[in-house]
Amino acid sequence: MAKATKVNHVAIVVSDIEQGLNFWRDQLGLHFDHVEDVPSQKVEVAFLHVGESHVELVKPTTDDSGTAKFLAEKGPGIHHLCIEVDDIDSMLADLKQKGVRLIDETARELPGRKMAFIHPKATGGVLLELYQLTGK
Amino acid sequence: MAKATKVNHVAIVVSDIEQGLNFWRDQLGLHFDHVEDVPSQKVEVAFLHVGESHVELVKPTTDDSGTAKFLAEKGPGIHHLCIEVDDIDSMLADLKQKGVRLIDETARELPGRKMAFIHPKATGGVLLELYQLTGK
Repeated sequence: MAKATKVNHVAIVVSDIEQGLNFWRDQLGLHFDHVEDVPSQKVEVAFLHVGESHVELVKPTTDDSGTAKFLAEKGPGIHHLCIEVDDIDSMLADLKQKGVRLIDETARELPGRKMAFIHPKATGGVLLELYQLTGK
Repeated sequence: MAKATKVNHVAIVVSDIEQGLNFWRDQLGLHFDHVEDVPSQKVEVAFLHVGESHVELVKPTTDDSGTAKFLAEKGPGIHHLCIEVDDIDSMLADLKQKGVRLIDETARELPGRKMAFIHPKATGGVLLELYQLTGK
């Protein structure tokens, strides 16, 4: 059976990346890696490391994405938790068979990784991302 | 300077521990450790391991605590993020000197650990707990 291996990241929606970095990098001292524009998700993301995990500061770049709506409705804060698994396809098949409500029934393939979201209704209110590094 | 070393835990407020365990332990397969009654915080907490971190399922046991109000107002979901640091006293002094808004200006001492909360206004909407294992 597929296994959850670690917290890959905690994603925090922010209205301003620099303001977010002011706390998480400059005041708290997390190791800042880089900022990446992710046009497919309509966001800009700052990556910071802490232990084996990272904190992602996610800023919507348009008004019509899920994260933009989250920011408009709830304000800045934790958007989702991402847990890394060793075999996402097998994990998704297993969760589906157990009747867990999934947002993505099959993993989305991206360079170097596969990902899928599980519906907050299944987890007790948490938008949960599963993530597998594929090295491809 | 004090350093952040890892994600210690992500705390999720739930209305029912068994229902939470049904997903996080039985369906997702996280390693379940134990359930603890924490009367000082008026909560019951289930601890699950994933990598070097853990997921805590937190159930309010009275109606008048912060977590009970969170649950009543926002429903179940992520309540706070806890980051472990190697020297919490020095970190708090440093954050205070930088003008960061703290909930606890000095760490609360508990058996084996010290902890303090940072105000969501300082972090961009995230209730952030700092944590140091003391071994005492």
